Amino acid sequence: MPYPEEAEGFQVDSPNTYTDFKKRSFKLKPFGDYDVDIKIEACGVCGSDVHTISGGWGSQKFPLCVGHEIIGRAIRVGPKVTLIKEGQRVGVGAQSYSCGDCKQCKNGNENYCQVLMIDTYGSEWPDTGIISQGGYSSHVRTHEHWVFPIPESLQSNLVAPMLCAGLTAYSPLVRNGAGPGKKVGIVGLGGIGHFGVMFAKALGAETWAISRSRAKEADARKLGADGYIATAEEGWEKSHLYSFDIVINCANSSKGFDLEKYLSMMDIHGRWISVGLPEEEGQVIKAQNLISNGVLIGASHIGNRQETLEMLQLAADKGLKGWVEELQIGSEGLKEAMERMKKGDVHYRFTMTGYDKEFA
Amino acid sequence: MPYPEEAEGFQVDSPNTYTDFKKRSFKLKPFGDYDVDIKIEACGVCGSDVHTISGGWGSQKFPLCVGHEIIGRAIRVGPKVTLIKEGQRVGVGAQSYSCGDCKQCKNGNENYCQVLMIDTYGSEWPDTGIISQGGYSSHVRTHEHWVFPIPESLQSNLVAPMLCAGLTAYSPLVRNGAGPGKKVGIVGLGGIGHFGVMFAKALGAETWAISRSRAKEADARKLGADGYIATAEEGWEKSHLYSFDIVINCANSSKGFDLEKYLSMMDIHGRWISVGLPEEEGQVIKAQNLISNGVLIGASHIGNRQETLEMLQLAADKGLKGWVEELQIGSEGLKEAMERMKKGDVHYRFTMTGYDKEFA
Repeated sequence: MPYPEEAEGFQVDSPNTYTDFKKRSFKLKPFGDYDVDIKIEACGVCGSDVHTISGGWGSQKFPLCVGHEIIGRAIRVGPKVTLIKEGQRVGVGAQSYSCGDCKQCKNGNENYCQVLMIDTYGSEWPDTGIISQGGYSSHVRTHEHWVFPIPESLQSNLVAPMLCAGLTAYSPLVRNGAGPGKKVGIVGLGGIGHFGVMFAKALGAETWAISRSRAKEADARKLGADGYIATAEEGWEKSHLYSFDIVINCANSSKGFDLEKYLSMMDIHGRWISVGLPEEEGQVIKAQNLISNGVLIGASHIGNRQETLEMLQLAADKGLKGWVEELQIGSEGLKEAMERMKKGDVHYRFTMTGYDKEFA
Repeated sequence: MPYPEEAEGFQVDSPNTYTDFKKRSFKLKPFGDYDVDIKIEACGVCGSDVHTISGGWGSQKFPLCVGHEIIGRAIRVGPKVTLIKEGQRVGVGAQSYSCGDCKQCKNGNENYCQVLMIDTYGSEWPDTGIISQGGYSSHVRTHEHWVFPIPESLQSNLVAPMLCAGLTAYSPLVRNGAGPGKKVGIVGLGGIGHFGVMFAKALGAETWAISRSRAKEADARKLGADGYIATAEEGWEKSHLYSFDIVINCANSSKGFDLEKYLSMMDIHGRWISVGLPEEEGQVIKAQNLISNGVLIGASHIGNRQETLEMLQLAADKGLKGWVEELQIGSEGLKEAMERMKKGDVHYRFTMTGYDKEFA
């Protein structure tokens, strides 16, 4: 089989036509010594995909093929690749390159590389004019550092969403000390949040799901939640004052969000980490709101290679899997995915599958 | 000498008359087994005093005697007191009681006690109707946990401001890891900020003072700053992107404060800790502003006993002293202090002295 120099995939041309996916061929970046070519088998549908192509996060480089929760086979590895073997089943998440040489990259913060950060889609490869294209496509070409071997026991369609949504929850959990003796809250039970509950529990923390209504309580408990808070109920914060060590805020919208009440539940120097990126305006914060418990507010950007490997191993060890509805890759399936994501009609992740049928 | 049941001090009656200090007697709280009576020798003038009596922080319990950077002599100790000896020179800061028994108190977070936190002035002692009164007075009565022996080598008038301003800078520095190999910024060179520069340097950090103009650069360097940033200069943040581990924000106003630029200077998971409490509205923060470096934003509330003792020892070991202008305690001196504080005409702290002359 000849190596691909092009991939075939589904692109969107503008925010006005974001459910109209056109099948096209596009050039891959030039093959580098550390690159891995991956034939894709499955790809999760991330909230980022919808925000990006529907214009919610501002202007983007169209035409664009999104998708960054990729599982596939390594069909070719560059001459200097040591981390991945040809034929291995692998994953790629939201990031596809970091410089490898800056202070951040050397500190295990390559997910915050400030020199050359290439997203799996929508970033320009220097000196090529090529815009990276994501996983609603036949192939991706990725630097080995950002390609992850998938443990044998994990099913492609169920593990795919871990590559972005899972890692986005996992990294801030471990970086902020989630584990035995810690009380962890997960706000918003969507794609990221359902992994948040699963991983917080798997890491040994006392885990609380925090959602608007009780509609998702049964699911949350199946995912491993020890407790459940419904913020539509009067006085919901009262019995948790100054008690949470870590809250991962996965909420996808900041409308009607009473941050002060949430923060009142944090223990001294607790960490309130946002991983959702709502499209609305932010919230007014005064030092006065943070001083009674010295809470720290932050945000988190996916995770590093080491954390990705640990997360996948944890999932394999504990038999964790995403709650996934499969859709056939193609214009129809992607249109359905985007429309239902926009409505929040997903429990809790779509994975596009059937790549063999669509891409010869 | 009979023990005092009352103290004599200078009270303000309302925000409208906040420079009109009336000399009056008022009852001390009932003497408890762990209490220490202190005859006051000196008291620093804190920004909190001005915010409180001029109404900037909202309604208060008037009439009120403020002042919470107190140095004096222990003239009586309760039967169960073990931490303080009669005759010892001691200090009292902004906090005068914590329950001693809750999770926070047992974790070294008694400065965040949620059960019974009594401020040195303006708090009501339970079941007494007595409002705590501060250090512009002859005596205070304080639980031994919140009374600190003062090392012999430190002068009363120069150490007084450390009890609130100094500790307010010192605690977040040590809690966030200021020390060798760390780059620390101190925003705002006022009462707190001048101690921030001094302590950050004494702790071994690379220390930068950050101020609007260059007017305070010479002072900052005398205080120990390795570098100086003037935010009135175009592009001031550019050469510091992603480099600060810790910034203590001591700014007393948030007007015209371009938080995004400041945050762009923070290293990955750097800590931006506010200790000033501006009277204005806060700032709009979106997760998007925090995600490129995963910076953590927080605030800090004074410090605990252990930190106070360590700070005083550090000051004694390194010969550190507040930059102080002395004013005679009394209606006139306090009026001058408040008027000049309001204008920012102080470099960098007033200490009220001459207590012997005013209080027989």
